[in-house]
Amino acid sequence: MKRTRFDRDPCPIARATDVMGDWWTPIIMREAFLGASRFGDFVDRLDVPRATLAKRLERLVEDGLLSQTAYQDNPPRYEYRMTEKGFAFLDVLVAMWRWGSEWGWPEGRGPAVELVDPVTGNEIIPQVVDVRTGEPIDPTRLRMQLKSSAKRRTVKAAEE
Amino acid sequence: MKRTRFDRDPCPIARATDVMGDWWTPIIMREAFLGASRFGDFVDRLDVPRATLAKRLERLVEDGLLSQTAYQDNPPRYEYRMTEKGFAFLDVLVAMWRWGSEWGWPEGRGPAVELVDPVTGNEIIPQVVDVRTGEPIDPTRLRMQLKSSAKRRTVKAAEE
Repeated sequence: MKRTRFDRDPCPIARATDVMGDWWTPIIMREAFLGASRFGDFVDRLDVPRATLAKRLERLVEDGLLSQTAYQDNPPRYEYRMTEKGFAFLDVLVAMWRWGSEWGWPEGRGPAVELVDPVTGNEIIPQVVDVRTGEPIDPTRLRMQLKSSAKRRTVKAAEE
Repeated sequence: MKRTRFDRDPCPIARATDVMGDWWTPIIMREAFLGASRFGDFVDRLDVPRATLAKRLERLVEDGLLSQTAYQDNPPRYEYRMTEKGFAFLDVLVAMWRWGSEWGWPEGRGPAVELVDPVTGNEIIPQVVDVRTGEPIDPTRLRMQLKSSAKRRTVKAAEE
């Protein structure tokens, strides 16, 4: 199946989808967060075909979410480490966590796992808010629009 | 390509991935948020093959993110409307938006689009926080663990 690429799309959701849209990618990133770093770690933790895993890791390195370092030369073996871009991806994963927790189980049931802060022992409950207000985002008050700077550039280009 | 299903996985991220993992799904949900409801709306807005779109819409209805209502009988035509579960998915999309905005462009550049509140005119900047603290989630202080209630169930089952 030919894959449509979204990595040149003007919308940030599309660019994130381009990375995320490989079925295994969020699961592989979850395991990287939880400490998996060598190929064998991912194989042990996930029921993923080796060829698929190799392709996904290569893509994540190419996209800069993971870095690759040789820990052995002959045969060559690599460790995969989270980059700053990879760490930032945690926000997407925890938003998926929250939504998956609330909607991924039959009513009245939920996941048997939880997120905790190991220092305080408190449960962590992710929520997406607007930085300005600190409040959850109201889906009925949300528009996507061209930035005014982009509009100016467009007008300028048209005038030239 | 055979698809691995994650919809019975104990992890909420995996259950969310199961829905999201279709490449087009987040983009189709974005357009549904922005007002697309009929098959033709999605075709007009997205460069998506019709067969792919039909399959993704069917899956989103099956998974309960969209509802399907006939607006014409002969030939049958449907409108797709966001459900409560679909609206809740907005949090995942805006987390993708934020990450895509920061990391999906070369350094020093960013998307030409922005999210705004049409009532106040203010830009909306999504951020994922911990409900308890209101602070961003620190990736170095995050563990996934079995809930103690689940542990008790496991112990009980082992004792029986």
